[in-house]
Amino acid sequence: MASAVPESNAGLMAEELRDAWLALDLGERVEGFRMLDPGEAEQLFDGLEPREQCALLLALSPAERQLWMRQLAPDDAADAVQAADPAAREMLLGALDAPTRREVAALLAYAEDEAGGLMSPRYVRLRPDMSVDEAVAYLRRAARERVETIYYIYVLDAEQRLLGVVSFRDLFAAQPDAPVRQVMRTSIISVRDDLDQEAVANVIAENGLMAVPVLDAEGRIRGIVTVDDIVDVVREEATEDIQKIGGTEALDAPYLQVGLREMVRKRAGWLVVLFVGELLTASAMAIYEDRIARAVVLALFIPLIISSGGNAGSQATTLVIRAMGMGEVNLRDWWRVLRREIWTGLLLGTVLGMIGLIRVLLWPARAQQYGEHFVLIAYTVALSLVGVVLWGALAGSMLPFALRRLGFDPASASAPFVATLVDVTGLVIYFSVASMVLSGTLL
Amino acid sequence: MASAVPESNAGLMAEELRDAWLALDLGERVEGFRMLDPGEAEQLFDGLEPREQCALLLALSPAERQLWMRQLAPDDAADAVQAADPAAREMLLGALDAPTRREVAALLAYAEDEAGGLMSPRYVRLRPDMSVDEAVAYLRRAARERVETIYYIYVLDAEQRLLGVVSFRDLFAAQPDAPVRQVMRTSIISVRDDLDQEAVANVIAENGLMAVPVLDAEGRIRGIVTVDDIVDVVREEATEDIQKIGGTEALDAPYLQVGLREMVRKRAGWLVVLFVGELLTASAMAIYEDRIARAVVLALFIPLIISSGGNAGSQATTLVIRAMGMGEVNLRDWWRVLRREIWTGLLLGTVLGMIGLIRVLLWPARAQQYGEHFVLIAYTVALSLVGVVLWGALAGSMLPFALRRLGFDPASASAPFVATLVDVTGLVIYFSVASMVLSGTLL
Repeated sequence: MASAVPESNAGLMAEELRDAWLALDLGERVEGFRMLDPGEAEQLFDGLEPREQCALLLALSPAERQLWMRQLAPDDAADAVQAADPAAREMLLGALDAPTRREVAALLAYAEDEAGGLMSPRYVRLRPDMSVDEAVAYLRRAARERVETIYYIYVLDAEQRLLGVVSFRDLFAAQPDAPVRQVMRTSIISVRDDLDQEAVANVIAENGLMAVPVLDAEGRIRGIVTVDDIVDVVREEATEDIQKIGGTEALDAPYLQVGLREMVRKRAGWLVVLFVGELLTASAMAIYEDRIARAVVLALFIPLIISSGGNAGSQATTLVIRAMGMGEVNLRDWWRVLRREIWTGLLLGTVLGMIGLIRVLLWPARAQQYGEHFVLIAYTVALSLVGVVLWGALAGSMLPFALRRLGFDPASASAPFVATLVDVTGLVIYFSVASMVLSGTLL
Repeated sequence: MASAVPESNAGLMAEELRDAWLALDLGERVEGFRMLDPGEAEQLFDGLEPREQCALLLALSPAERQLWMRQLAPDDAADAVQAADPAAREMLLGALDAPTRREVAALLAYAEDEAGGLMSPRYVRLRPDMSVDEAVAYLRRAARERVETIYYIYVLDAEQRLLGVVSFRDLFAAQPDAPVRQVMRTSIISVRDDLDQEAVANVIAENGLMAVPVLDAEGRIRGIVTVDDIVDVVREEATEDIQKIGGTEALDAPYLQVGLREMVRKRAGWLVVLFVGELLTASAMAIYEDRIARAVVLALFIPLIISSGGNAGSQATTLVIRAMGMGEVNLRDWWRVLRREIWTGLLLGTVLGMIGLIRVLLWPARAQQYGEHFVLIAYTVALSLVGVVLWGALAGSMLPFALRRLGFDPASASAPFVATLVDVTGLVIYFSVASMVLSGTLL
């Protein structure tokens, strides 16, 4: 995978330590970290998750903590502080110098998962009437300070309102005596400070941006979000969505790092909810108990039929949740989605129904296993499949819209949840079809 | 969401066009695109997916095609060409100037989803014994040319082997007469040109990099991958994983863009496979038909039991697939995962078993619905749940390892696939437990 150019043993050790990091306990991490040379320690430290940075910082000596805490950009420092227990936060904040502490405290006021919680307040700002030459000289000084990036420069008026953006590269390549105003771009994509991080990621990804300015409600610039922070956001959000779709609470930590108790807690919640929902199938089945007693053959196809509905529902809900997460589908698109799913569900149901029909009609032991009315059984199975698959596609695709409309995360419409919902209704559909087709013969 | 600073109607129109893009047909897109002023057209064009760039380029006039094709960086041009039908590729390549055409052709030799297919060959390179001042002057010229970025500079020896990396910012802030060798970092994280793009994304994300150099088997630098390209990779890979986990083929296009025929095709494949697998449940049930006839009450709990196993399996497989995708879990970790899942599965099974036991024992209509042996039924249900949930967790967690070991994508162990597998075995577990507990009474 990553290969450090092997020019010293220290380089190799840093790589090994990085690879083994997750498997080491805190004591071993501290020990290994202290053995690295400063450049490598910095690289390793910068690459850690906020949670891990926080744990490492708290395990180091006060002097080391001060050194490494001050190494972090304010937005990263805020993330590390947010990862600490409330009691330990003061210890981390106390390791910062006073101006940075104020910057970090301002960032802590934002939720972790909105633009304000992601942004760095240390962007470079210029006035529009500076010359390119003056600007470059100014940036040379800024490059030695701890600004987040000197590569994107924001041009502000006296009220901190954003007039334009210029890349360092454009500035560098421009006529030295031109005013910055002439070089800057004025068509600017920006985000509000309270925008959700998933939406910020969509803005950056869809416009291919390297950084996006964050504005408050009055249009004043508060900071910038850079694309490298967005990579982490996109990965985290995708992990959360995937875990929810799989029917677990988001783990919020790597799989192998989660303790057994925590793992059971995160999974038992949804599993119990689904189980309680699924108990309704036992109640539904009890209603049909005497019909099953009269025609045991009906029981044979129950798992087949309800799971087909569940699978169709899983597909639909997963596709819609992801499309919503990517910003491709919005609330107002529900009708377009519904129309598509009606057709898709009908066609998919027909395909499965045909296979089911053929399977029962042509099964060698058909008369023996399914009785003399096996043709009627075949029609019952086929018709039920069309109904159940259509229902699965509709319920699965509409549930994320309903959840979003009610203010919940659409990803909570996990595939197992839809499957459970479809199981119960699937039984009702199956036995209703059976009653119609088989009344007068088996029922 | 994104808000352009409203300073002209053109700005507003560009934003509207961007928002409406997916809903427009090709003719409307071309028309809208031609009405934008050049800066905004550029911004819109850069933000499009390669597939959309390709469609737009092919719909424009030859002169426009040449203009916009030459606007693309070689890696993006290669993606757009790759998105075209083989017949149309020559038309796009022909719009490039000769040197770029050669660069793009070299990139087309790499698979789209490996480091070589993502990289830009237009990085800036320096010799180690240049002075900082000479380097900055050189970069000023490079800034006017179409290099991917001047912000990361690669220091090479005469054989194109990578000696070090220096950020423009460090160079800019350094002593003007120092040699570049003194300023550069020599501990370099790099990737091989044939590394899978998901692994490239993990390297960049975990190390917080803005760009990573791509080396060939001989250690020569071939190009660089920048973090903005990685955002798209991470989103695409997550979408693919989510869709596979949901039991669909990857759509490879936004949900609302996929035609009905394509949508049915992508979903029918897996649905039919799962259905055929699920047909085994009908065969398994047929084996137990006479037992069901003797104790119809057993049928009532079939959906409950098999779906609980399916849900536990979905959870486990989803967690393991994602952990593999994030690089947190490797093949060699299978034993650690298995041990965790044995315990997790046992505990989760016990929780559900207890709820099931209580539900049957305390149900008001228990004797009437479940018969005189309802206590034995309760034990059968509870024991089966422990077995089925444990089995779901084991099968769900181990299947991704088996698939990866055999060279398949672990994400193919979709949640519905695991659920189907567990349904069939779940029936066997349930009826085996029933035979043991109920023999001599009901069976």
